[in-house]
Amino acid sequence: MLEQLKAEVYQANLELPKRGLIKYTWGNVSAFDTETQLFVIKPSGVDYATMQPADMVVCNLQGEVVEGSLRPSSDMPTHAVLYQQFGDIGSVVHTHSPWATTWSQSGLDVPAMGTTHADTFYGSIPCARFLNSDEINNDYELETGNVIVETFKNQGINPHDVPAVLLHGHAPFVWGEDCEHAVMNAVVLEEVCKMNIFTRQLNPFAEALPQEILDKHFERKHGANAYYGQN
Amino acid sequence: MLEQLKAEVYQANLELPKRGLIKYTWGNVSAFDTETQLFVIKPSGVDYATMQPADMVVCNLQGEVVEGSLRPSSDMPTHAVLYQQFGDIGSVVHTHSPWATTWSQSGLDVPAMGTTHADTFYGSIPCARFLNSDEINNDYELETGNVIVETFKNQGINPHDVPAVLLHGHAPFVWGEDCEHAVMNAVVLEEVCKMNIFTRQLNPFAEALPQEILDKHFERKHGANAYYGQN
Amino acid sequence: MLEQLKAEVYQANLELPKRGLIKYTWGNVSAFDTETQLFVIKPSGVDYATMQPADMVVCNLQGEVVEGSLRPSSDMPTHAVLYQQFGDIGSVVHTHSPWATTWSQSGLDVPAMGTTHADTFYGSIPCARFLNSDEINNDYELETGNVIVETFKNQGINPHDVPAVLLHGHAPFVWGEDCEHAVMNAVVLEEVCKMNIFTRQLNPFAEALPQEILDKHFERKHGANAYYGQN
Amino acid sequence: MLEQLKAEVYQANLELPKRGLIKYTWGNVSAFDTETQLFVIKPSGVDYATMQPADMVVCNLQGEVVEGSLRPSSDMPTHAVLYQQFGDIGSVVHTHSPWATTWSQSGLDVPAMGTTHADTFYGSIPCARFLNSDEINNDYELETGNVIVETFKNQGINPHDVPAVLLHGHAPFVWGEDCEHAVMNAVVLEEVCKMNIFTRQLNPFAEALPQEILDKHFERKHGANAYYGQN
Repeated sequence: MLEQLKAEVYQANLELPKRGLIKYTWGNVSAFDTETQLFVIKPSGVDYATMQPADMVVCNLQGEVVEGSLRPSSDMPTHAVLYQQFGDIGSVVHTHSPWATTWSQSGLDVPAMGTTHADTFYGSIPCARFLNSDEINNDYELETGNVIVETFKNQGINPHDVPAVLLHGHAPFVWGEDCEHAVMNAVVLEEVCKMNIFTRQLNPFAEALPQEILDKHFERKHGANAYYGQN
Repeated sequence: MLEQLKAEVYQANLELPKRGLIKYTWGNVSAFDTETQLFVIKPSGVDYATMQPADMVVCNLQGEVVEGSLRPSSDMPTHAVLYQQFGDIGSVVHTHSPWATTWSQSGLDVPAMGTTHADTFYGSIPCARFLNSDEINNDYELETGNVIVETFKNQGINPHDVPAVLLHGHAPFVWGEDCEHAVMNAVVLEEVCKMNIFTRQLNPFAEALPQEILDKHFERKHGANAYYGQN
Repeated sequence: MLEQLKAEVYQANLELPKRGLIKYTWGNVSAFDTETQLFVIKPSGVDYATMQPADMVVCNLQGEVVEGSLRPSSDMPTHAVLYQQFGDIGSVVHTHSPWATTWSQSGLDVPAMGTTHADTFYGSIPCARFLNSDEINNDYELETGNVIVETFKNQGINPHDVPAVLLHGHAPFVWGEDCEHAVMNAVVLEEVCKMNIFTRQLNPFAEALPQEILDKHFERKHGANAYYGQN
Repeated sequence: MLEQLKAEVYQANLELPKRGLIKYTWGNVSAFDTETQLFVIKPSGVDYATMQPADMVVCNLQGEVVEGSLRPSSDMPTHAVLYQQFGDIGSVVHTHSPWATTWSQSGLDVPAMGTTHADTFYGSIPCARFLNSDEINNDYELETGNVIVETFKNQGINPHDVPAVLLHGHAPFVWGEDCEHAVMNAVVLEEVCKMNIFTRQLNPFAEALPQEILDKHFERKHGANAYYGQN
């Protein structure tokens, strides 16, 4: 089932090392099928050199395996929560890309310091809090999803406007309308995390982009009157 | 029309990811034809893997499309202003190359700290101011060009001596006599931006190159008695 | 003898430049055979382009060459000490990978600041002290091994929980159950060394991972109830 | 004439971009022939894609072209001075490799902070002073060579023990017994320049390697009783 989506998820997972976002198997991509309300995800810890599209695992929104002979990524329950809570997102990506992971380890939100950021993310990318004892010891990966959802709710951020989060001490989760856009958003996140750390070092007084430029760049790509690209 | 120039512009755009200056479609190259007073530019947001020379768009100095079935790069009006105002430049390049973008985000000019810089840029590379409300909301890309021109005029810089500018909060624009030199200048800019940030960190008292060495290196490549290369 | 192990050691040595851990011949991998109590190691200073599996050298736990026409890596006696003292480790890797070497030069332990670290290393990676005069002048490479063993003993660290060490002013030694895992651990070490230096720069108040998250991540991959991967 | 040496010099020049030491034509390699007392050097500003071994230029120790239809590298007179003054060095390399150039721009000597350095350079790599007015305006490239020689003489450094120098505000010159070793020394210089800047940032109190470890590592590779490698 969902052969086409499995092929896309397989290809998107291969994009991660190719784009420099992961080494070995340190990441995973999934994609959601609206019709069946199921999602397809990479199996856990399988070598990319031998992995096949048919190895992808199909799961439901309760985080249960529906089809597949291999175990799904251990982060699968986090993906399930995001599909359940974030409306119509089509794909979720998890990586340990070094610059985004550096920000995650620092526990800081990523401010919008330039138009590279504003073209994709409408404002700061939040860093979610550490999980507490109970959350760590009971269903860690599911609670990771819950903490992400809590972060967006508490800070009043629309996950379609800011399709990424950092987990304190861990690494980023990123999403998008489909696999291609979710991976692309993960690349943008990595790039702005790299540039922002050095922007601050170069000029410790550098500030976030003026609101009107943030609006302009996000709107020209994502607004009702978007005029970037061919559509 | 302008088939030869389209082929050159197409090739120069492909150079951008190859030289590590952009990811995906985060940049654009154009080139100017003196005879027809038209320029050729990359279409907006088209995947480099499928893009063809025939997809290039022909525009005039008023920023109007003259030929082409695709929309031109959304930054096209900025290119038009530069061709109109900067005399006989032959090509314009826009990238979000990470180190130059880091300097753009910091809002600082790039000082000439070494001969790598002096071989191409005769003095500091200026960082243009943020656009104001009116400029952002009325013809943003055209006003971006105007702010670049204003920067060079106000600071008394000859755009042939310093073929690059940073836009505060955005990224660089670079130019040259033709596509090949414009891309090369963008590579030099990226390299000096990387080296200068770490030079300052290594020795916060490091200063700009003595004027006589700046003169010597710029002149040996670009002066009347240039003796670098085979011409 | 040990032809299969020679092929593995040969392949693992080629992994070092491929993974960006070394340039030229600045590293070496060895692997241990439990049955014969011998280990196979790269020859000293041989070009990787011409090196063959048959060039690998077989040594015993006393650091003597048992088979091979070439000299073993000059670091061979260090490998011998680690196999002798660290129980059942299957492979040892030495590199001058730049970020781990930077930490070695700084003389600091690498704290566990994120789950990338916790997935492989259970706590800080220690930096061993400089060798003293006697140790430098009498059997330097053997004494290097002894200082590593001393470091783990004095600090009460189990080498299976923390399969890496930094040598002050030198570079890392890393180990694992076999060549593949030892090289992978060297890649993880390099990545966390890169991320931790910038984490500290981004947020000088950033702290080590909470103990419970360290436990969780190490246990889900290496504990009795590990659930990462397919085994 | 000197066809074999031309082939070696050609190959060594191609190594520079391959090893990440230069972009475009920002460097040059030469090699010396003891018998004829001539040296072979890259032509100035020629594209590496089309350059041929026969394009190499033959010069004498007075810095005059002896054979070749193309202009030699503009830095040729610097090479001539080094061959004349530094005894039996076999090859000279000039690059603008980014980390070594960063140190050159900072005007600081590169201290020996680790064994990666000590394996090749016996002590600090000096940064030569800026050229003065007269030197800049009269035979700049020749005077560059003279300033390098002056630096080693004044500081009592043997150019065989420390086969590299930084030029303040410019970039490195490196040498060795032949092309292969000179390029390798340029790679080591680049790597230690990268590592040392971050070592200092990580631990501002980090010091140079103890003298005995510096001795040990330099001697085990270059001393009378060297035991690294197969010779």
